Amino acid sequence: MSQTAAPADLLGRLESCLGRGGLLTNADDLAPYAVDWRRLFPGRPAAVARPANTAQVAAVMAACHAAGVPVVPQGGHTGLAGGATPDASGGQVVLSLARMNAIRRVDPLGLTLEAEAGCILKVAQDAAEAEGRLLPVSLAAEGSAMLGGVIATNAGGINVLRYGMTRNLVLGLEVVLADGTVVDGLRALRKDNAGYDWKQLFIGSEGTLGIVTAAILRLVPRPRHTATALLAVPDPAAALRLLRAAQDALGDTIQAFELIAGESLALVAEHAGLTSPIAEAGWTVLMEAGSSLEGLREAVETLLGEVLERGDATDGVLAESGQQAAALWALREHITEAEARAGKSVKHDVSVPIPAIPDFLAAAGEALAAGAPGTRPNIFGHMGDGNIHYNVIIGPEHGSEAINRIVHDTVARFGGSISAEHGIGQYRVDELVRHRRPEEMALARRIKDALDPQGLLNPGKVLRAGP
Amino acid sequence: MSQTAAPADLLGRLESCLGRGGLLTNADDLAPYAVDWRRLFPGRPAAVARPANTAQVAAVMAACHAAGVPVVPQGGHTGLAGGATPDASGGQVVLSLARMNAIRRVDPLGLTLEAEAGCILKVAQDAAEAEGRLLPVSLAAEGSAMLGGVIATNAGGINVLRYGMTRNLVLGLEVVLADGTVVDGLRALRKDNAGYDWKQLFIGSEGTLGIVTAAILRLVPRPRHTATALLAVPDPAAALRLLRAAQDALGDTIQAFELIAGESLALVAEHAGLTSPIAEAGWTVLMEAGSSLEGLREAVETLLGEVLERGDATDGVLAESGQQAAALWALREHITEAEARAGKSVKHDVSVPIPAIPDFLAAAGEALAAGAPGTRPNIFGHMGDGNIHYNVIIGPEHGSEAINRIVHDTVARFGGSISAEHGIGQYRVDELVRHRRPEEMALARRIKDALDPQGLLNPGKVLRAGP
Repeated sequence: MSQTAAPADLLGRLESCLGRGGLLTNADDLAPYAVDWRRLFPGRPAAVARPANTAQVAAVMAACHAAGVPVVPQGGHTGLAGGATPDASGGQVVLSLARMNAIRRVDPLGLTLEAEAGCILKVAQDAAEAEGRLLPVSLAAEGSAMLGGVIATNAGGINVLRYGMTRNLVLGLEVVLADGTVVDGLRALRKDNAGYDWKQLFIGSEGTLGIVTAAILRLVPRPRHTATALLAVPDPAAALRLLRAAQDALGDTIQAFELIAGESLALVAEHAGLTSPIAEAGWTVLMEAGSSLEGLREAVETLLGEVLERGDATDGVLAESGQQAAALWALREHITEAEARAGKSVKHDVSVPIPAIPDFLAAAGEALAAGAPGTRPNIFGHMGDGNIHYNVIIGPEHGSEAINRIVHDTVARFGGSISAEHGIGQYRVDELVRHRRPEEMALARRIKDALDPQGLLNPGKVLRAGP
Repeated sequence: MSQTAAPADLLGRLESCLGRGGLLTNADDLAPYAVDWRRLFPGRPAAVARPANTAQVAAVMAACHAAGVPVVPQGGHTGLAGGATPDASGGQVVLSLARMNAIRRVDPLGLTLEAEAGCILKVAQDAAEAEGRLLPVSLAAEGSAMLGGVIATNAGGINVLRYGMTRNLVLGLEVVLADGTVVDGLRALRKDNAGYDWKQLFIGSEGTLGIVTAAILRLVPRPRHTATALLAVPDPAAALRLLRAAQDALGDTIQAFELIAGESLALVAEHAGLTSPIAEAGWTVLMEAGSSLEGLREAVETLLGEVLERGDATDGVLAESGQQAAALWALREHITEAEARAGKSVKHDVSVPIPAIPDFLAAAGEALAAGAPGTRPNIFGHMGDGNIHYNVIIGPEHGSEAINRIVHDTVARFGGSISAEHGIGQYRVDELVRHRRPEEMALARRIKDALDPQGLLNPGKVLRAGP
């Protein structure tokens, strides 16, 4: 793997295959591609290639492969783990998919949408909605995130409970391999057991095995009725009983079940000026169900009555309109912004088995109190998926690496994951090695070596760079 | 890859790691493991290893790896593509997972079930049901099929429309690699983006990349209400309009949408003595929806009224009881048996994009009439998934390979798959090469070589044996 500047003749070749405007090399032009949106992972690209179609992606990859120059694929640049920024060597070419943004087809009957990798998630969502269908990947960055990155990171978000991760929605995929080979698997099929399902390798491997250039995604019927409720619960164990009751009463109409700590809502009130319509509580649950059937609202009302009577919830409100529902969601959506205003924080995106959540939260709280006194946890997340964003607001005396270790080691005790939905990127590469078994890491390395023997695809992301 | 008999010292080593009863070598004992249940793919095992735990699987794999002897993993032996039987050389060891049949844990709140590979699917379904949950893989062979095989073949079945293929239900996996390395990924997590999701490689690769020894599967809430209807429709295009109307009215409560040709129901009447309760029609749709909400039945009734009025259905019945629903399903479930009694047939398990189904059926009918006159199609399948079992009853004058080609070439014209759910096994290896792009086959070979460089794992299945 080259760590020196890209050779000038490579840049010439790239320019000739990309045409005018397809290759950026001036420092000013490169700046937006050099760092992630949170400005945590700065780098220095040798150049930015902006292909307009798959053939140009293939040409870029073939040229870089021949020159032994690493390539860093980049979409909307909204990742949280530094997976899409180059290193500081000035020897890596950034490959931006932004110009490949066409929606090729929406099929409302077959429930599929075909689009190029640079298509913005929100644009794809809107195209599905225009046909009365739902593209059920929804996340905070949807106005900027591009489908290629959504797929390459196997993005999660708020609808995973009902519809699964992005992986569950990818029917067909086109990728370009490290050497420029185009592999076209753009099949609009819901069932296809003909040979290895190779596309699974590229979903969630963060551009380290190949470049996603286009995809066919699965759509779902849009639920006609939605019920959104906010409930005050005494503790996470009560939230768990509420989840169980909701599963029994509402089945898989539940599409979100978010747990929010009282401290998090206090941050939102203080820094974003939004207040909860229900009584202050140790913990809050934001729950949403959706269905095509009449009777959803009644079923949710009955459920709320039962859990309030049992004391598993101490207060609750069921949104009376879409506007009220949006106001409840705004509380949840402003937590990250409020956290940023509250001070410096260390973020964790962990998951544990769902029934272990109360014990995990208690254990992590104790471990932080003992190991990093003075820190303030800001806890929220997708409880229905076992995914907790266990963020920690720190003072100048605290080191983020030590906080990481405390939280991740607690996760490991409960059989959890150190990255539920954000991925590894460059941010968690060393933590991954600490937390995955050697046999798993060896298997990952074998896969990497088979698909990218020269280590030119997004080196240093997910796996450590080099052999 | 060895094609000669397994060396005697290997059998001695296997016996010493498996103990008495763990290794079968007598011809009579081997016979049940030598051929699939349809007796289409006979072979001759060198021996049958029956490990009792993962450590024994690892020991068997390590010993065979050291001796260069191929291993053929085998579960319930219900596959339809010859994926689990040895070749005729007498040089392959069959590895039966049947003794590893424990259900380790059912978690009704976390919605997970952990079991060993030899656990029979029906036993796992029952264990989930005992806790009020549903393991939503359901297929004709569920009383014999084992979870390891279900996972290794990414089994489909009747609930795919709502819950996806088996792949969508696997949360955690333990596998043993070709060299005996155990890779433990038994995590009960719904979201886990920490590193490559290597388990995807083993799901659906039919034992050619590693041996599945245990898994954690996702359960779902059991729908409290079910509505099952049988409808007569004039043609496949009307069935498609019915599907669209059902998607709009019922959303993802639809859990089965089966299309059955009039000829298929005639076969069931003639050979199984079961008759449809509705008027004879060119085509019939069996539809089932399920929900936790009241109001499902009313919604289905409203839908049926509308489609009957529009003429997209000409007759219909909604089951009044579980018994009636079972009687409707019995029509569907007896098709394969009736076909077997009707004579020799050539089976196809194909999928096409859902909106293309009417045109595909018309084109395949024309192609068969022209290329193989005198054949009788027996068409049924999971229309809601785009999966059609396009079987063809033939006379002595017809060759099955020619029929395969006619059907598969028609599938290819519509961008379909030659194996929607049954897999490739040994049966469709050559057809796969004909229908997949060279880049896809080269990528599959790279994956195979990376995980099984000596070609000892289920050689000749999915991919051609040898380099």
